[in-house]
Amino acid sequence: MDERSSRRQRLQHKMKETGIDLCVVTQNVDLYYFVGSMQTGYLFIPAEGESIFYVRRSFVRASDEADIAVEELGSMRGFGSRLTQAYPELFRKPGGEQTIVAAEYDVLPVQQFQRLEGALPGVKWVDGSTLIRELRMIKSPGEIAAIRESARVIDIAYETAIKALRVGMPEVELMAIVESVIRHNGHMGLMRVRGYNQEIITGMIGAGSAAAMPTYFDGPAGGQGLGPASPQSSGRRPIEANEPILIDIGCCIDGYVIDQTRTAVIGELPADLREAYELSEAVMRRTEAMLKPGVPCEELYTAALEQVRVAGLSEHFMGFGGDQVKFLGHGIGLEIDELPVLAKGFRYPLQPGMVIAIEPKFTFPGRGVVGIENSYAITEDGFEKLTVSREGIAAAAAPF
Amino acid sequence: MDERSSRRQRLQHKMKETGIDLCVVTQNVDLYYFVGSMQTGYLFIPAEGESIFYVRRSFVRASDEADIAVEELGSMRGFGSRLTQAYPELFRKPGGEQTIVAAEYDVLPVQQFQRLEGALPGVKWVDGSTLIRELRMIKSPGEIAAIRESARVIDIAYETAIKALRVGMPEVELMAIVESVIRHNGHMGLMRVRGYNQEIITGMIGAGSAAAMPTYFDGPAGGQGLGPASPQSSGRRPIEANEPILIDIGCCIDGYVIDQTRTAVIGELPADLREAYELSEAVMRRTEAMLKPGVPCEELYTAALEQVRVAGLSEHFMGFGGDQVKFLGHGIGLEIDELPVLAKGFRYPLQPGMVIAIEPKFTFPGRGVVGIENSYAITEDGFEKLTVSREGIAAAAAPF
Repeated sequence: MDERSSRRQRLQHKMKETGIDLCVVTQNVDLYYFVGSMQTGYLFIPAEGESIFYVRRSFVRASDEADIAVEELGSMRGFGSRLTQAYPELFRKPGGEQTIVAAEYDVLPVQQFQRLEGALPGVKWVDGSTLIRELRMIKSPGEIAAIRESARVIDIAYETAIKALRVGMPEVELMAIVESVIRHNGHMGLMRVRGYNQEIITGMIGAGSAAAMPTYFDGPAGGQGLGPASPQSSGRRPIEANEPILIDIGCCIDGYVIDQTRTAVIGELPADLREAYELSEAVMRRTEAMLKPGVPCEELYTAALEQVRVAGLSEHFMGFGGDQVKFLGHGIGLEIDELPVLAKGFRYPLQPGMVIAIEPKFTFPGRGVVGIENSYAITEDGFEKLTVSREGIAAAAAPF
Repeated sequence: MDERSSRRQRLQHKMKETGIDLCVVTQNVDLYYFVGSMQTGYLFIPAEGESIFYVRRSFVRASDEADIAVEELGSMRGFGSRLTQAYPELFRKPGGEQTIVAAEYDVLPVQQFQRLEGALPGVKWVDGSTLIRELRMIKSPGEIAAIRESARVIDIAYETAIKALRVGMPEVELMAIVESVIRHNGHMGLMRVRGYNQEIITGMIGAGSAAAMPTYFDGPAGGQGLGPASPQSSGRRPIEANEPILIDIGCCIDGYVIDQTRTAVIGELPADLREAYELSEAVMRRTEAMLKPGVPCEELYTAALEQVRVAGLSEHFMGFGGDQVKFLGHGIGLEIDELPVLAKGFRYPLQPGMVIAIEPKFTFPGRGVVGIENSYAITEDGFEKLTVSREGIAAAAAPF
């Protein structure tokens, strides 16, 4: 069976377990995941039977791309009755039970939702986003191969950045060099993020005090950015000698993202920052030792917290003070913020096919951020490290 | 009075007119517009009195950036009672009337909305997105100056692209050159778009048949893209001699975008495509003649339709066949898809301060897209053309 139809079948299986009659998929990334096309429209997946993709535009292109039946959406007015005709048994259930329809409440705007509610009066709506995100959490071999390719390209960009690093170079200039390398190597020009109001450019190259500035971005190191209209990532501050340079970069090739971080310096880091960096590698090694099927996600986080506490660096871990984030890593795939999250409350046991970016980092306000981030695929008996860039603090060209 | 407090006052004025007691602003761009910060949280603007920005993160940064009172959001549990204490007269109205609260239904996800509903039981929720988008439609002199700067930078990128154009160069290579120029000149690395599922990278450089491919993107020329996971914009097809090269590019500096299109060729265009290009300039000239306060937006579109009909190119205008889009232009500002839209049903009269990208284009399936796009600010007695790039078909280097 082909990959996408097996995804729909797995969703149907979960729908039956949870009593959902129909899933309406609307978000571009979820559409691509289930049918191979991100043309705009509504994908209806019934608990049993064939899915239909009703497309607004481009119908021509969706018909080419999707692996299931594609119909023109037409006007929303007649849409409800077309649906009840397409799925009569779902809308006229024995015993007069209410039809239960799930949608992606985590991304679907209220306006779009109300339009759907208007088209399907009388049904009961429920949030289907966790269902879909849990399915997407387990990657196929093909998906992992795509992430491997992004990992290969980001390594080229990383080595180029290390060679280009100079004292006095603004962070954003170095970021522009990285972006040019990845774009010439297949990067789509953007990285997708699911969370409301979250944006990611291509990560963040941040040096010294600028890297340590807190931001709204839901990650351990935000960065100064270019101003209040772009208040994260790289800024115009020139990179100085003997300060940590956090190179947290990613790219997106054929839809799949990679996320990696390395620490560099022009000259030498102060001893305490070097030790903090070494602790980030030690946390990584100990986390790797726990990467096997069955280990609950949250235990990776709590073990890291304990390791850092013993080393006396709790206050600096994953951000500083009130701006600390409460996780050690996150799933990646079509989006940068996938499941699982390595955080308290995430009891998912690790499973083969999960792909997780693990990012122990230490923030020193006014001085900088040090740390490392690798992405891993969980395998039957452990893990595959997808990140290929060399570890260790990269010593760039001489300071002067 | 400072610009942002005058924006809030204008919103309050509109709220009173429409009977809204409280606006909850949540989207990053709207937050930036009203208070100067895009840290995550909830901004409450009452119909009368002081606004409060409740911030999740970063509180430190929001306190720096915002021009109003900032409070830590804390847990959602106690949030409702904090709000009713902050605005007692709004939540206990004389006569026991229901409090009316508006939110941005066009972008707010259902999950976030339900969280707000839970925090404020008993109020009546309404869609506030048109109210906010209509406010943002009229730009201040400072906003127009920011767009002028983006227009200046995109012209540098355009001239660089024309110099770099070579036969056999993949579209995406030329796009990478444009992106590098704009990034080194202040582009934030992304362009914001409001519409659900809409993405924009930095526009599209598309040549020949690839440019004419329809896409989900709500614009007249989509492009082939890099594959079904990125099904729009530039692709890997090599640019050939004697075919139209549509250079539809933009950038975003200090939050404000520009959007411009030019047509180039290596060698010479076939006569009918050259004539179609000339018609796009003629449409532009006639549209310019209508750019003055008081003219209804939709009339610009219907006049263009008529001009194109008379010339016999209706079928090719703004896309081809079933994939045509039904507008001539759109507002730009902090987002690429602002009000007004130059389309039927948009009866807004042109007003000083509107900034509109006008983009007459003609699509020839299998052959390419030709056209032009300029951005204009409406002034007291006409318009200011913000786009500075030279018009006309750019003849690039010799074909061989």
